[in-house]
Parts: sequence; structure tokens; C-alpha cells
Amino acid sequence: MSYDPRPGMSVQEIDTPALILDLDDLEYNLQTMSRFFAGKAVGLRPHSKTHKCPQIAQRQLEAGAIGITCAKLGEAEVMARAGIQNILIANQVTGAVKLDRLADLARTCNLTVAVDDAEGVRQLGETCRAAGVKVGVLVEVNIGMGRCGVEPDEPALRLARQVLDQPGLVFEGLMGYEGHLVLIPDLQERTEKVAAAIGLLQSSKDLLERHGIPVRIVSGGGTGTYDLTAGCAPITEIQAGSYVFMDATYANIRPEFRVSMTMLTSVVSRPEPKHIVVDAGLKTITKEFGLPTLLGVAGSMRYLSEEHAVIDLAEPDAVQLKAGDKVFMLPSHCCTTTNLHDVLHVVRGGKLVDLWPVAARGHSQ
Amino acid sequence: MSYDPRPGMSVQEIDTPALILDLDDLEYNLQTMSRFFAGKAVGLRPHSKTHKCPQIAQRQLEAGAIGITCAKLGEAEVMARAGIQNILIANQVTGAVKLDRLADLARTCNLTVAVDDAEGVRQLGETCRAAGVKVGVLVEVNIGMGRCGVEPDEPALRLARQVLDQPGLVFEGLMGYEGHLVLIPDLQERTEKVAAAIGLLQSSKDLLERHGIPVRIVSGGGTGTYDLTAGCAPITEIQAGSYVFMDATYANIRPEFRVSMTMLTSVVSRPEPKHIVVDAGLKTITKEFGLPTLLGVAGSMRYLSEEHAVIDLAEPDAVQLKAGDKVFMLPSHCCTTTNLHDVLHVVRGGKLVDLWPVAARGHSQ
Repeated sequence: MSYDPRPGMSVQEIDTPALILDLDDLEYNLQTMSRFFAGKAVGLRPHSKTHKCPQIAQRQLEAGAIGITCAKLGEAEVMARAGIQNILIANQVTGAVKLDRLADLARTCNLTVAVDDAEGVRQLGETCRAAGVKVGVLVEVNIGMGRCGVEPDEPALRLARQVLDQPGLVFEGLMGYEGHLVLIPDLQERTEKVAAAIGLLQSSKDLLERHGIPVRIVSGGGTGTYDLTAGCAPITEIQAGSYVFMDATYANIRPEFRVSMTMLTSVVSRPEPKHIVVDAGLKTITKEFGLPTLLGVAGSMRYLSEEHAVIDLAEPDAVQLKAGDKVFMLPSHCCTTTNLHDVLHVVRGGKLVDLWPVAARGHSQ
Repeated sequence: MSYDPRPGMSVQEIDTPALILDLDDLEYNLQTMSRFFAGKAVGLRPHSKTHKCPQIAQRQLEAGAIGITCAKLGEAEVMARAGIQNILIANQVTGAVKLDRLADLARTCNLTVAVDDAEGVRQLGETCRAAGVKVGVLVEVNIGMGRCGVEPDEPALRLARQVLDQPGLVFEGLMGYEGHLVLIPDLQERTEKVAAAIGLLQSSKDLLERHGIPVRIVSGGGTGTYDLTAGCAPITEIQAGSYVFMDATYANIRPEFRVSMTMLTSVVSRPEPKHIVVDAGLKTITKEFGLPTLLGVAGSMRYLSEEHAVIDLAEPDAVQLKAGDKVFMLPSHCCTTTNLHDVLHVVRGGKLVDLWPVAARGHSQ
């Protein structure tokens, strides 16, 4: 018997470990987000880092997204080759090799990139001018996360002016990411802190405009804050990513979306009645946000090793699982888990309907 | 300028993030391990889960290894296709789809697999008999890790007899993994605990042989215990993996090997003099054994996010690094970090000499 996963196959026949994407739940999430943005001035530019999959990016655009966000130049190249026309790389792109690729990419799509450094702006501008292309630029502002970004106000104004001095660059606006706030459990606290952080983008925008620099785009937000951030005055674009798949972490704070992506695993061993071992470990599912959650079986995960998850069963006598049987798990972090896989097994009504490559996986340069 | 990494290129020209493998250091590690096993009755069967790379497996065999170990059936298929002839899958393989593939694989190489369950033995035996192949079998014994494996002594004897009842299977011996002991820092404590754990394999072997069952192979050990475990009476094979690359964790307890694999990263931002941000995050380097270590720059890593590492510099005034400059990092866990990459950039004397695909990455089924 050769294994050939094809449409019509039952989900239980899919070999493991395997990422399973329920198309009904994915579509529900796309529609839920689409309804939220319908009629609003602010647009959704979903972050493709979550899925790295052109088929999903296309569906996000069909559901009303104004473009997509990428983390890496290599990911943007994959998306552009798949026909995506409007791409924001929400990070700094540095080094001569990448800047040349970025200029090449700008010939094939409408491309915008983040900057936070005068020398970086100079090199990017020179490369684009020499290549005869125009690239959109957002000045990244540190709104409290303390990772990348210039400080708000005067430093943002200074860098925006440097962008305006470069004929190869088009100053589009500002970007800030409130990544330090997206998982605050308490809604009121999250709301207040988001408003304060986005206030730093507002004051920077005001300063630029007082100096005659129009700020067309202000980009920010994640799945944990999309509605709060979208309600803040200066924001024009939201970069939410995880809402398409969800995970155990976001499920706690975002009940309006459904879990669409799970991992199918097989029991490889039940050496004693009280514990099972399944074939998903750190090389196929991640744990930086906590251990994965077992679905449909009462038990607690003891640990993940490289290729095993060891699970203590809460009611061993009530569980018939034996080696070869299948068990679903919910990742604690969908973005890094997808990054470990080459393919999404797309199912509807318990049947396989398609295989979607995680085409931008590994394109980390 | 198109980027085309080719022999002769300086390591500093390699685009980032990139895994860099120093061939001199790799060869040093291969020779060091080879010298340890020279003239001993116990052999080295290196675990290829660390590198997933046929070019390295071949060099391990050329350096005297008696075969290789794989974690997954899919990895074993990749190694066999690359011409590796003697393979141990050191895990249980379950489910009809995989058992059929395993029988197919047994036609192309000398294959051994671990078992720990009577029903698993029955299904494996049936499949191999029906396919007309013979597969070697090691009974996995739980020697204290509490993951997979039957209990020592009577349960091991019982399962060995069930293997002997299957005409498609060849009972080869026992396997135990002291994974819970490989990172004990104190050498004396590690030595004593390893001896006690391997004693459980000895008593099981003795029991089988008293019942007339020859135990040809007893397999165990890792990089943290290879010398200790190899010195225990019953052991015939050692499964060490990480010694080829090393990492920050093993470097503390295994000074006889050199770090051969590092990660080259680029600074993407230095928003203030005191901190830099580089382009390696959780999607390219792992942290379950701790954050990676910066090489050549005094500083401490604040955190890894998906695509960024944020580093606080110890002496900002003494560090000239700016966006686009390159920095090396040492992973805390080489096995899971390699699993995030498609290629190893092989260098010697600071020049690129080859690109070796991590060919078995993603073959987790």
C-alpha cells in the first residue's frame, strides 16, 4: 500500500505528524475579520508570517484585505511570485545582497518596507535610485516594545525627512508594533495600554504633518489588539496574523475566532496504562508559549522531547488509545509551529480537500 | 548583483541568517570520536537526528561508524536513498501506512527498528512477512527516562519472545536511552547514574541469555554519556549525535569536542547605542535549552522573538556594530536548530567550500 494523500481521504487516514487546517473554520475566521473591517476607514493587511502560504494570502485578499504583510524579504519574494501585488515587509532589510533583491522585487509588486536608521535609509535609497525603482517606506517607531524603531516625535520626523531626501523612496507613513501588549489577559488594561502606545504614533504623525509631511499610512496591531488598535485615531492598517489559525494562547483572549489549525499525531507507545507517547515533539510543534494542548483526551503533557510528547492520562481506565491510534493537539503558538512544516492538510467535513504548501517556510533570508 | 553563494566566497559574504559549519572543526570531532572507539569492542552508530545530512552521515561512516541511527522513518528513507546501508530507527514505527513504507525500505538497506509493545510487534511482523522482508528488531527497555520502552527483565524477555515468534523479524537485542542523565553537570554523579541505568540493560540481557536468547546488540548512549555508557559491560553500540556540531549546552560538559556549527546573523537595527537587534529569531534558532550565546561581542540576549534577537551590549562604547554588520551566535541546542534550516554553509579557513542540504529536514513522518 503506498501512501498518497488525495482529496476524499478521511482525516484519520492522514499520516502523522501532520498539520490539519479545517477550511470551514478558516473561512469563518476570514469572514469574521472581514465583517469587522467592513465599512471602516482602517484596512486589514494580514501578517503572512503565521501561514507563509500563498493560498491563504489570496483568500485574505479575496475577503477584503488591502494587501499583505511579510516578516522577511524571502517571504515577500515567494508571495510576489504567487501573484500577490501589494506587500509590506514590516522589518528592516539590511546588507547589499538583500537591498539588491529588494530593488528587484519592487519591479514585480507594490512594495513597502520599514526603516529605523539614517544609514539604512541612505543605502536603501541609493540602491533603489541606481535600480530605477521606487519603494514605499514606513518609519518604524518604538511605541514601548523596545525592539526596533526610532523614538517617537522628533527622531521620527528626522528620519522621515531623510526618506524624503531619497528620490528612490516614497515616504508613506509610520509603523509601530505593540507586541508587548497583544497578550495582556485583562481587556481593560490591554485597551488602555494600547491607546497610550498608539498615542505615540498619533503625536509623531501630528508633528510630521505640522512640518508639511503627509502621513498616508499608520500601520500596527496584532490579533490580540486588532479591534483596539483599529479604534485608535491615527491607524490606517492592521497587521493581524494569527486570527486565521488561532492557537491555545490566542483562544483564551479571542473567542470570536475559531481554532482552524491543529496537529494530528499518532500514539507510538503506551508502555503502561497511565501514559501515552505520541509522535510530535519539538521538531514539529513549539512550546515557547507553553506546551501544546491535547484535544479530546483528558490528560496533561509531561514534556516534549525532539520527536515525542509524553502525556499522563487523567483517567487511564477510560482511554482505549493504543499504539497507532490518532490524537489531535492544539499548538500554543501557531506561527512558529507552521514554520516547522512543509504542507498544510486542508480538510472540510472530516475529508481531505487539498494540500497547501507552506511555500515561504525556510525563506528566512 | 545577484547572490550566488559559491566556493571561495568569504564567510562574511554569506547572507543571513545562515548556519555555518566549519569543516576543520567537524573533522576534528569525527577524528576525536573515532580515536575513542578505535580498538574497542563497542561501536559508534551516530544519531543523524542532529544533522539530517547525508554528507555528514557518510563522513561518520568513513571515520569508522558501524552504521547510523535515525529518529524517523522518513529520515531513514532519505539516508537510504543517499546510499547509507546500515540504519537503526531508534523509535517505534506505528500505523499501517508507515509499516508498509518500512517494509519497502528494508529492501534497500540493512534496517533495524525499536519495539516496545506486543501488538506493535505483531503488526510489524505481519507486514514484514507479507512483504517477504526481514527487519532487525531491538526491544526498547525503559532505563529510567519513563518515555517509551518496556520495563527491564521479565517484560523485556516476554517481548523478545514475541519478536522471535515472528518470521519476518530478526531479534537483534536491546536498546535503552539514558536521556534523563546526559546533561548532568557533575561527572561522578553522571557516571554513577549511567552505570545504574545501563545495569538494567545488563540484567535484562542476562535474563534473555539464561533463557537461550542471544543478545547480539545492546544500544544506548548520547554525546553526554558516550564514554561512560561505552564502558558499561553490555553495551555494543553508542548513538551519540550532537558531538559533530556541539552547542552551548554540550560545550560545558564535553570539552574534548569543538563547536563546528554556528549561526551567522546580521544586525538589522541599533536604535540606541546600548542595544542591537539581529535577524535570527525563534524561526531560525531554538531556545528550549536556553537563549543562544553571542560570539565575539560582550552582551546579553534579552529575548528572541520570531525573527529578531534583542541584545543588550555590555560595553556599548566599544562596539562599532551597525545595521548590516554580521555577528555569530552559538545555538544552545544544535539538533532543533538544524531542524529549522534547509542548508549548511560549509566553510574552511573562513571561505565557503560547499553547501550541504539538510536533506532529511521535514521528513518527520
